[in-house]
Amino acid sequence: MKTYSSALPNAGILLDESSGVPLHAQLYEQLRGAMLSGRLAPGTRLPSTREMARELGVARNTVLNAFDQLGAEGYLEGRVGDGTYVSAQVPDDLFHVDREDRPRGRPGEGAPLSARGRKIEAASVSPANYCGQPRPFRTSTPALDVFPYQLWSRLLTRRWRRSGRELLTYGDPAGYRPLREAIARYLGAARGVRCHSDSIVLTNGSMHALEMIARVLLDAGDPAWIEDPGFLGARAALTTAGARLIPVPVDCEGMDVDAGIEQCHHARFAYVTPSHQYPLGPTLSLRRRLALLQWARRTGAWILEDDYDSEYRYTGKPLPSLQGMDTDERVIYIGTFSKVLFPAIRVGYIVSPPGLYPALVAARSLGGHATAPLDHAALADFISSGHFARHLRRMRVIYAARQRSLLNAAQSELKGLLDVEPGEAGMHLMGWLPESLDDHAAAIAAASHGVEVTPLSAYCLRPPQRGALRLGYTGYAPKQLWEGARRLASALRGQGFKRVDRTQANPFPSD
Amino acid sequence: MKTYSSALPNAGILLDESSGVPLHAQLYEQLRGAMLSGRLAPGTRLPSTREMARELGVARNTVLNAFDQLGAEGYLEGRVGDGTYVSAQVPDDLFHVDREDRPRGRPGEGAPLSARGRKIEAASVSPANYCGQPRPFRTSTPALDVFPYQLWSRLLTRRWRRSGRELLTYGDPAGYRPLREAIARYLGAARGVRCHSDSIVLTNGSMHALEMIARVLLDAGDPAWIEDPGFLGARAALTTAGARLIPVPVDCEGMDVDAGIEQCHHARFAYVTPSHQYPLGPTLSLRRRLALLQWARRTGAWILEDDYDSEYRYTGKPLPSLQGMDTDERVIYIGTFSKVLFPAIRVGYIVSPPGLYPALVAARSLGGHATAPLDHAALADFISSGHFARHLRRMRVIYAARQRSLLNAAQSELKGLLDVEPGEAGMHLMGWLPESLDDHAAAIAAASHGVEVTPLSAYCLRPPQRGALRLGYTGYAPKQLWEGARRLASALRGQGFKRVDRTQANPFPSD
Repeated sequence: MKTYSSALPNAGILLDESSGVPLHAQLYEQLRGAMLSGRLAPGTRLPSTREMARELGVARNTVLNAFDQLGAEGYLEGRVGDGTYVSAQVPDDLFHVDREDRPRGRPGEGAPLSARGRKIEAASVSPANYCGQPRPFRTSTPALDVFPYQLWSRLLTRRWRRSGRELLTYGDPAGYRPLREAIARYLGAARGVRCHSDSIVLTNGSMHALEMIARVLLDAGDPAWIEDPGFLGARAALTTAGARLIPVPVDCEGMDVDAGIEQCHHARFAYVTPSHQYPLGPTLSLRRRLALLQWARRTGAWILEDDYDSEYRYTGKPLPSLQGMDTDERVIYIGTFSKVLFPAIRVGYIVSPPGLYPALVAARSLGGHATAPLDHAALADFISSGHFARHLRRMRVIYAARQRSLLNAAQSELKGLLDVEPGEAGMHLMGWLPESLDDHAAAIAAASHGVEVTPLSAYCLRPPQRGALRLGYTGYAPKQLWEGARRLASALRGQGFKRVDRTQANPFPSD
Repeated sequence: MKTYSSALPNAGILLDESSGVPLHAQLYEQLRGAMLSGRLAPGTRLPSTREMARELGVARNTVLNAFDQLGAEGYLEGRVGDGTYVSAQVPDDLFHVDREDRPRGRPGEGAPLSARGRKIEAASVSPANYCGQPRPFRTSTPALDVFPYQLWSRLLTRRWRRSGRELLTYGDPAGYRPLREAIARYLGAARGVRCHSDSIVLTNGSMHALEMIARVLLDAGDPAWIEDPGFLGARAALTTAGARLIPVPVDCEGMDVDAGIEQCHHARFAYVTPSHQYPLGPTLSLRRRLALLQWARRTGAWILEDDYDSEYRYTGKPLPSLQGMDTDERVIYIGTFSKVLFPAIRVGYIVSPPGLYPALVAARSLGGHATAPLDHAALADFISSGHFARHLRRMRVIYAARQRSLLNAAQSELKGLLDVEPGEAGMHLMGWLPESLDDHAAAIAAASHGVEVTPLSAYCLRPPQRGALRLGYTGYAPKQLWEGARRLASALRGQGFKRVDRTQANPFPSD
């Protein structure tokens, strides 16, 4: 039953017994709304509680309750021997919302962001908005089907029992120390990184690391080299930090350092993926590594080495990190566990030169990223007790097999439609399209067939010489990969392309 | 046993059998180091592996292994029928590190940060660098001694069993949806916040929220109101985003909105703690709330309402949020679970006006803060099943008792030294010092007596009229609070202050 009060015609009180919200709360909310919108003006005398209760057909306590709260909050005031009034202490014009009285630009709609805010809104970290469970060929997806759940759960439980209380408080501003120690040992042994726990800052993954580093090192307008094609997240972090991007081309030796120097000798910063160029895959050659280090040494520039998937190399020995070759402390090294364990773990790390360490720790504190120490403690145990090394070895075997499955499936299903190149490392392959085919249109067609692929052009600042699709394979069983390849073939054929039996040459020049 | 090679005098090879590092790895590392530092120049012919093995007194395989790796990485090249050479493909000047060849400013030391980086490095989020387990009177410390560990652990385990796999992937960019839904219901009922799950962005706590909002809304030089005294974290977030701070004084009605308008009518932004001003404690009066909303409406400014500890009010009804009074979508509301549950949970939230939502979600993605979904899922369960409401009720009783303990202890131990005022809300009290006493010196003296207190002046942009100390009490049992009061008394007496029996008037003018 709804009751309507005529005692206060302007207030338009309308109580609904069936709404589930207590009547006194409804009355409070509506009276307050009437005052805030100016329908009940300051100084207005309200009916007595008895009168209003009768009018509304509710218990007097309901009205008393609402009036009490409004009184406590300053909306109503009682005058002795007189009655209850809308507060006159508050000037009329404060209560009254004049609809003309608004700034231009219609607040609330088309809200005025800062120039930086507009850049942030427009920034794209990932070419697709991944949602739902992973499906072929979504990238950056580890094999969650074979993740050691039981073991991880056991480590979490044990940590919680052993040190739950200590782990609940604010943590070390650089991140949980035992985890930093475990990471330092791992990086030294596996990646030739020169570091110790006090040069490591934990982050919530690579993106967080990139964003912090960009803010600490760059001011608006500072030029920064970026690989083209390259990691969109790096581009977004640099752009929103105000950097002027210098796109440096990539060939089969990785980033073309000489071209970078020619384009912008005095860049402040170079973002590079030396172990396995993102997304094309080449390794930065020794000559280029040395040239890059020399350039940084001579100009005082910083090098950001993103070693995002170096854990997975299937043929040949992994090259040690660029950071380990640097004798001048110009290299900042970042890595992440999101891809080698599981994305939700949100643990990345920065290995910082000593001069930058205090600023990076401050940046982390500022973002309030103190800790998620239960996960961190479990991860430290996972690494220290040798599980991590075993996990990597096991995954390398599985991923190599999955890559072979994808190559076989592509050979069988996608011949002439997509030339999928084998990869020595990493978690994805590039498939090259016939020259006439637009990779963006191909990716859209694939999506309509239930397949997720990313067009190479999404990673490019300058249009690529030839279109390609990026195919993640690590997260999927062979059956899924074959099914994905069949669907992708339908999608590409639907684009009006016939199978052509030719071998495409490697599209980027090898010098 | 250490062996030294004379075959390559310039390289200075020195192998240590007792070091634990395999000999081939030592040899690899040292040869590489010699090449990178220019001690072994490009084109240098190396001894044969056999010769070097004999010279070093190691197995030939050790040398072969090191040479193989250096060859694969491009440092060495073999010439048919000749021998092994330091790569001549790499020009000499790339290898050679000329110590004169450095930029000014000595890279690696005094590393050149950006102007923003220098601000970040200098920013202070908290007046003290809290470390170790909490002790009186460290603030923002919930009662971890009575936290429901068993229950929390049960919820975590159940979630992991039920939905472990789904929780491992990349999450919703705005944060785990069921948690956003639970928060929306809670804020609507408990704080009168108008919101639904799609106006909420999850963050890693308040600081993260502040930092994101500041970046999205402010450009360098934009004026922003800030309460003075006020939350250091807000000051740091605004400063590092480049804002020009407009310090607005605080009195017993909270932030003096008229003073703000007078100082800077066209500020872009106002940071305010209406429920319980940080750190002084008053509630923003109705008149000021309305004036603030009107100002924002007229000028198109944004209001950031930080409702950091509104859950704990001991006397009177809690005032609903400012956000709930706002009819023009000018208020951004933030809150956190770090203080009501435990700091390490790192879950905060932003309730965003619709116009800002896409930019805030983008800012969150950009920082890579996708998820920590196991904790988030457990927290959603904790709220939805009513545990959170019960936890708050239980904590309110405990905290009220702890506040009484602190007041009694202060009355008994600190009379004349520190005038501790009762508080209607929150997790700390202010203790006012005699007028002659510098609060900064008092805090240092307290620290030397094992007591953590924060001086009011640390929160002030303009020097306070009178010194005071901020005392957290919620995290400590009565016995600890009494012991803390005794130690603090010794510290203050040691500063040369005698007990003076007088009642200090409230030092901030009440209009």
